Amino acid sequence: MAAVVEFIHTATLLHDDVVDESGLRRGRPTANVLFGNAASVLVGDFLYSRAFQMMVEVGSPGVMAVMAESTNVISEGEVLQLMNCQDPDVTEDRYLTVIRFKTAKLFEAATKVPGVLAGIDPDLLEGCAAYGRHLGTAFQLIDDALDYAGTESEIGKRVGDDLREGKPTLPLIVVMEKGTPEEKALVRAAITSPESADFDQVVRAIHRTGAMAYTLDSARRECELAKAAISPLADSPFKSALIDLLDFVVSRRG
Amino acid sequence: MAAVVEFIHTATLLHDDVVDESGLRRGRPTANVLFGNAASVLVGDFLYSRAFQMMVEVGSPGVMAVMAESTNVISEGEVLQLMNCQDPDVTEDRYLTVIRFKTAKLFEAATKVPGVLAGIDPDLLEGCAAYGRHLGTAFQLIDDALDYAGTESEIGKRVGDDLREGKPTLPLIVVMEKGTPEEKALVRAAITSPESADFDQVVRAIHRTGAMAYTLDSARRECELAKAAISPLADSPFKSALIDLLDFVVSRRG
Repeated sequence: MAAVVEFIHTATLLHDDVVDESGLRRGRPTANVLFGNAASVLVGDFLYSRAFQMMVEVGSPGVMAVMAESTNVISEGEVLQLMNCQDPDVTEDRYLTVIRFKTAKLFEAATKVPGVLAGIDPDLLEGCAAYGRHLGTAFQLIDDALDYAGTESEIGKRVGDDLREGKPTLPLIVVMEKGTPEEKALVRAAITSPESADFDQVVRAIHRTGAMAYTLDSARRECELAKAAISPLADSPFKSALIDLLDFVVSRRG
Repeated sequence: MAAVVEFIHTATLLHDDVVDESGLRRGRPTANVLFGNAASVLVGDFLYSRAFQMMVEVGSPGVMAVMAESTNVISEGEVLQLMNCQDPDVTEDRYLTVIRFKTAKLFEAATKVPGVLAGIDPDLLEGCAAYGRHLGTAFQLIDDALDYAGTESEIGKRVGDDLREGKPTLPLIVVMEKGTPEEKALVRAAITSPESADFDQVVRAIHRTGAMAYTLDSARRECELAKAAISPLADSPFKSALIDLLDFVVSRRG
């Protein structure tokens, strides 16, 4: 099932890079740049259907139900994100829905499926699912912060890609709530007309309004919720690893 | 399960039209033209994962296994087809593998799944599957013939799209087997450099060498095999409908 999750994740990355026209991923040229959009779309479909085949071999109806719901929610999140692009009126709530769907849902599936296979009780299972959901949300919040704070060599992607696509992520949403009239107008124009956005000016507004700090704090809060969700688990090296992962996610620079 | 098959089919069409950069489908502008590649890729993923969800609700492990294998073979066929593009050395065997994978496999799933759900005996089940496989192969053979023989208003797609993509389909493969040295050279150049292909000259070679008749005969032979495969089924209006479908597939003009 770990391989199934990896295959689904890779399939979504292949399709995402086509959709976002991204040229760099994990510090290397993307598949769409190297092999073209056609190969990326079709090999993504292949990986996705192979993951489905591997799941069927596992033979657990409960696991199938979790994975079927997850993959559907993930693609719903991707479609919602596409609809939000270049829309400056996206709220924090709508943003959070997108990242819970497109990103956190697969983390949730990954931490829930082992519980389903082990047959743990429903409360504990919900705790495992909640851990993944909050971890995934924190991961995406940091990802969206790094798009304005990281460097290309750190994050392995081009910095400012979100702005170039007119993606209304949390750093921009906070500027539009807390910024001066000029800062609000700057970000609104950047989202609606990304081709003429001034990245450095936007980054200055993100820092001055505290939008960067707000985004990082949101990620830390998600990590606290994740930690609380697995508090009923008995102490073990595995539980320690899950807790260490929370620290890694909020402290990572790339 | 009929809806599941339709959803999977629609998902593959959405992705195909992105991959092939097609502008016309069923006589109307394609989704990629109307809404862009991003929406087509993501909505295709959504339909595909929703189909998976609907399958899980049906709750039959046998059906899941058929569908998992089918979707994986379909995407393998799409990847093989992409690899064959602009390759003039593709043989009839390699061509048949591609169309059995990318097209006939979903027909086969559609005619096999009801048998799995009804719990019919293995021999009869294989007959139903074989019917779908041969029907699907005939359908694609005719589709590939129409790309050189139909009109845009009949087939609802742009005529000559296959040639423009350098797709080595059976009409071209037969010319390269049976044509004069000039005809072979013409088709070979058309496949390797589709942008400079002369459609009318290629169509003349396809008719003169008997490649069109050969392709139509191949489709008719597949229909005979399909008919034989369901001969053990008792006579009924349903069986008659399956037989009528064979006539429709080979006589259709679009």
